[in-house]
Amino acid sequence: MYKHSYKKRVRYNETDKMGYLYYGNYANLYEIGRVELIRSLGLSYQKMEDELGIMLPVVSLESRFLHPAYYDEELEIFSYLDEMPSKIIKFRHEIFNEKEELINRATVKLFFTDMNTKKWISAPPIIKAALNEYFPDA
Amino acid sequence: MYKHSYKKRVRYNETDKMGYLYYGNYANLYEIGRVELIRSLGLSYQKMEDELGIMLPVVSLESRFLHPAYYDEELEIFSYLDEMPSKIIKFRHEIFNEKEELINRATVKLFFTDMNTKKWISAPPIIKAALNEYFPDA
Amino acid sequence: MYKHSYKKRVRYNETDKMGYLYYGNYANLYEIGRVELIRSLGLSYQKMEDELGIMLPVVSLESRFLHPAYYDEELEIFSYLDEMPSKIIKFRHEIFNEKEELINRATVKLFFTDMNTKKWISAPPIIKAALNEYFPDA
Amino acid sequence: MYKHSYKKRVRYNETDKMGYLYYGNYANLYEIGRVELIRSLGLSYQKMEDELGIMLPVVSLESRFLHPAYYDEELEIFSYLDEMPSKIIKFRHEIFNEKEELINRATVKLFFTDMNTKKWISAPPIIKAALNEYFPDA
Repeated sequence: MYKHSYKKRVRYNETDKMGYLYYGNYANLYEIGRVELIRSLGLSYQKMEDELGIMLPVVSLESRFLHPAYYDEELEIFSYLDEMPSKIIKFRHEIFNEKEELINRATVKLFFTDMNTKKWISAPPIIKAALNEYFPDA
Repeated sequence: MYKHSYKKRVRYNETDKMGYLYYGNYANLYEIGRVELIRSLGLSYQKMEDELGIMLPVVSLESRFLHPAYYDEELEIFSYLDEMPSKIIKFRHEIFNEKEELINRATVKLFFTDMNTKKWISAPPIIKAALNEYFPDA
Repeated sequence: MYKHSYKKRVRYNETDKMGYLYYGNYANLYEIGRVELIRSLGLSYQKMEDELGIMLPVVSLESRFLHPAYYDEELEIFSYLDEMPSKIIKFRHEIFNEKEELINRATVKLFFTDMNTKKWISAPPIIKAALNEYFPDA
Repeated sequence: MYKHSYKKRVRYNETDKMGYLYYGNYANLYEIGRVELIRSLGLSYQKMEDELGIMLPVVSLESRFLHPAYYDEELEIFSYLDEMPSKIIKFRHEIFNEKEELINRATVKLFFTDMNTKKWISAPPIIKAALNEYFPDA
């Protein structure tokens, strides 16, 4: 397993008239979580697009909203890779509020996709190499 | 079953650098779908909040992204109630592009919540009455 | 002068915890206003990008917020071209609520830009031809 | 004068199909800039709303877009108060990219507003006290 955590404050534009972080904006938190997980491995999602021509469209999203998040709270986004990525990369997320309550749980699956052909491809070797030590049996 | 459809164009601010409708923005489409379904029943989500003091926070979201949506495409959002709402209201959505391809499928569950006490309550009678003829066995 | 109007409802994700349409989301309304003005001329902003390779980045924005807009209100966005576009195209906007109160006034300037060279260019002939009858002295 | 700076990375959901930070999303950056400036004074915008019942709706926005901002760039938002706030508080912003190029300049004016009466009020004493040393002649 590989795990990373990142903190993000709830901003005014992300709230709604209930005073909550709008449910659609959690997708941005998962995005930030997975991009920062990739950065923590010494890699860069931006370079993967610009230099390798590989993009990662989302194919599925499952999310459970356990408690609301409020304006100005600093949330902690935990992002997990439970398996070595193959054609698919699956991120699991847990979001905690400042009181350390679990407020959201999610799973996001993405496909490695060649930006020119738009075809699905396998996880690039640079990703596999960076994760190798965390998945010794993969 | 009760079914409603609503058309919505993909706007520039909803696209991302892949040129696609950003995956987080589909949640806005489900929101629009369910609010317009409620309006089609002669009701108003806004009045439910302002006059009945009932809000509908989302408790879960499941989404499958089958094809990308592109800038300026007019999408058709189909929204379905398959069951009479009780404590929970479950919306099922299918989104089609202009070529009539199914591009996204989702399920969103929400709880009827008293805005003062923040407690879950049953579906208000006004909702049940409006849906009665569509769920004769409920 | 050329004038166009377009209606757009305030959606939940566009509100903030004050219960207002978030001030940053007015930029989306100006965008919708100018894109629909262009469509009303028989042209397409999307085709301008995809077929002519011309994009329109914003260079300046001025906005005055006169009254708040609320959830579910249907706003009317009036968009005006007061001058024939040259290197610059200047849109003026006025937004009215359902009570026909003027709630926002804005001016947005954009430059015609070649997507390959990223250089500013003159308004494409197709734009000038479409606007010719509205600016007889230009 | 009082000056504060804050860093913020451009996220995927903030980009558009030009590959740029969408022009409407700069408003979020000004918001973050002013909220963090207030925090740097030992105050809290969130407490101002929740404890003092004072909110700050935006009354005007002027923005000049000098260069685009790109995905994953870490931007530096400089926020300035040039005058002691009275009924109005005026924030000036300058945004720089990682190459230290000035990419955006803006001015945002807001009114102190009583959340109950919705009337404009003077800057609360807690704000004036915190800024006193920076505006000796005010």
